[in-house]
Amino acid sequence: MAGYGLIRVGEHWNKSLRHLGAEVYLDLVSRVGEVKINKVYVSSLFAAESSHQYLFAPLLADHLGLEHVPATRVEAGDASGGIAVHEAFLSIKSGMFDSVLVIGAEKMTEHVASISTESRAKLLDSKYESPHGLTLAGTYALMMREYMDKYSVPREAFGMFSVEMHKNAVNNPYAQLRFPITLEKYFESPTTADPLKLYDCAPISDGAAALLLTSLDYGKEISDSLVEIKASSAATDNFSIIDRDSILELKSTSKALEEALSEAKVKRRNIDVLEIHDSFTIAAFLSLESLGFSQKGKTHELVLNNYFSKDSDLPVNPGGGLKARGHPMGATGVYQLVESYMQLTGEAGHFQVPDPKNILVQNMGGTGSITVVHILSRIE
Amino acid sequence: MAGYGLIRVGEHWNKSLRHLGAEVYLDLVSRVGEVKINKVYVSSLFAAESSHQYLFAPLLADHLGLEHVPATRVEAGDASGGIAVHEAFLSIKSGMFDSVLVIGAEKMTEHVASISTESRAKLLDSKYESPHGLTLAGTYALMMREYMDKYSVPREAFGMFSVEMHKNAVNNPYAQLRFPITLEKYFESPTTADPLKLYDCAPISDGAAALLLTSLDYGKEISDSLVEIKASSAATDNFSIIDRDSILELKSTSKALEEALSEAKVKRRNIDVLEIHDSFTIAAFLSLESLGFSQKGKTHELVLNNYFSKDSDLPVNPGGGLKARGHPMGATGVYQLVESYMQLTGEAGHFQVPDPKNILVQNMGGTGSITVVHILSRIE
Repeated sequence: MAGYGLIRVGEHWNKSLRHLGAEVYLDLVSRVGEVKINKVYVSSLFAAESSHQYLFAPLLADHLGLEHVPATRVEAGDASGGIAVHEAFLSIKSGMFDSVLVIGAEKMTEHVASISTESRAKLLDSKYESPHGLTLAGTYALMMREYMDKYSVPREAFGMFSVEMHKNAVNNPYAQLRFPITLEKYFESPTTADPLKLYDCAPISDGAAALLLTSLDYGKEISDSLVEIKASSAATDNFSIIDRDSILELKSTSKALEEALSEAKVKRRNIDVLEIHDSFTIAAFLSLESLGFSQKGKTHELVLNNYFSKDSDLPVNPGGGLKARGHPMGATGVYQLVESYMQLTGEAGHFQVPDPKNILVQNMGGTGSITVVHILSRIE
Repeated sequence: MAGYGLIRVGEHWNKSLRHLGAEVYLDLVSRVGEVKINKVYVSSLFAAESSHQYLFAPLLADHLGLEHVPATRVEAGDASGGIAVHEAFLSIKSGMFDSVLVIGAEKMTEHVASISTESRAKLLDSKYESPHGLTLAGTYALMMREYMDKYSVPREAFGMFSVEMHKNAVNNPYAQLRFPITLEKYFESPTTADPLKLYDCAPISDGAAALLLTSLDYGKEISDSLVEIKASSAATDNFSIIDRDSILELKSTSKALEEALSEAKVKRRNIDVLEIHDSFTIAAFLSLESLGFSQKGKTHELVLNNYFSKDSDLPVNPGGGLKARGHPMGATGVYQLVESYMQLTGEAGHFQVPDPKNILVQNMGGTGSITVVHILSRIE
């Protein structure tokens, strides 16, 4: 990884999808200069729904003035961003390209067609889940209820995780919800799908992020701030929660993690920061357990003891995570990786964690039907 | 390329999108056996619109019983199929996977939501083309009118190309329109967008095709019928026809072709069969010219002299092409490559061309905003 571009996550009513993509590319150019780009990957989940646009990758390549450069859009739900970086990583590895641009861009608020609960329910099984009225939040609500009952978990733990994320986001200039919340405010917030409170859920967001991947040789030519992708692994699980042995295990996450650790030749204890997919607070808990950084049913104890706080030995989502940075679905994975790049190159400003060497990033699609895990390391 | 699975293109009202995908996978397994698969690429343009499904790649991987195998959906309009194979090719080249499955699957006829002119217009620029009433057929109609006027081309030439495609499709058991047409029938057919006649246009289609890509070593273990991908190149062009120097040049095609020839170290004269993207007859004419197999404005002379007929020295679309095999948009590129694989391994039956060694395949998105070119060679 050799450079990035960002805009703040938020409600960008006055900016089109292509505008968001162009803005982060220009931000990237302002940082690394007008570098060579051989290939573009674009991740945008809702381009056809919110912006009436297929072929958004070639459109964006043209809009950016990248003449004739091949451009592919990938879709893997809200793991699209991480998967786009995974595919870009493979294309560099193939030896056929040495400088590949990834742009994640998403419009969820839009005059013509804001993204609805129904649109998001397309992340569920269109035969066995969504037609029966199940929604994305509804599915996570089922998981949360089961988790709370099975392990006798107090709601405070979920609330505290949310409080922590909001606290982190205050220091991240690119975050959507840059305000602190209290446990009281969490409890007072409306229920979205019982037992989920509003503050258990990531917001509806627009945003875009750009990341430049290069071969090591070309990276050294153009940048002094390089980060190595030590592993990039993806795995799937039974799609519908109905088919899983347990709805409290994210097997796509544990499988991708296992492969990533072995690919990177890194141990869990060498990971300094975790960037996880907290689309809901329960998703964060299950992710931490499936990644093996917490025992099953014990995450609440760690959270209540500030084990994952920004000033702890193992900070989780120092930029506020999906919960408070925001969750522009197709762009989220790119935001996660860009923020981790910033941490490893010491560019994270007020949300900087002191001196991290290895960061693990987990990006998940839907209810965990796919996960992509990256392990990033500072190049000394 | 080590194996394939197919179903006939048509109107599969009684089969869901996942059903189509599963059927071609089972067909592939019946040919090559239960082989190892490390990764899946899925191309399906309209999954979210016709089948209310995001994350269709992980869903299909699960549906096929490919436990935990990573799965990515790619979208590049009606070039999605070719681009999926391109990405699969890169992932094999990366050395991280040695057996990769590509499935193209498309439902355009569907009880809930058949794919409309408006949906197809999302292949155009959503700011500068479609909002002004331009449709996909309308754009090709503009190109055809300009072409006919500029080069004084008689309509018969387009009609003859269509007649030829229908003749070829009669012998292809997987083709949708397996009936011959006459020039009279062509002229009598209704106008869809002046000057386009119905028989200038590819039909609305459902279909699916599967293709197995492997490393050379693993391919030799599992199959006696291997085809080498000598080149896989993609390129983009100015997205909107408004921005192009000429609406009669497909620069994405000429650029991708140029790179493919250089990558494959093959000359045009070594190509024995052309598989081109004839979504409209004018698209075929412009493609042949942009690929350099015909001079600008001269294609009608070659067509009228049977230069591209199945029994000529340079057969074009021996299986009937998009025009008559059918055009299930996201699956089309995979059909093109599977049919070419069948030609090179001598499995094309009644639509077999005698003894081809090299085949060039061109798959285009929208009005040529992206093209992917493959050069395939028999392994002696």
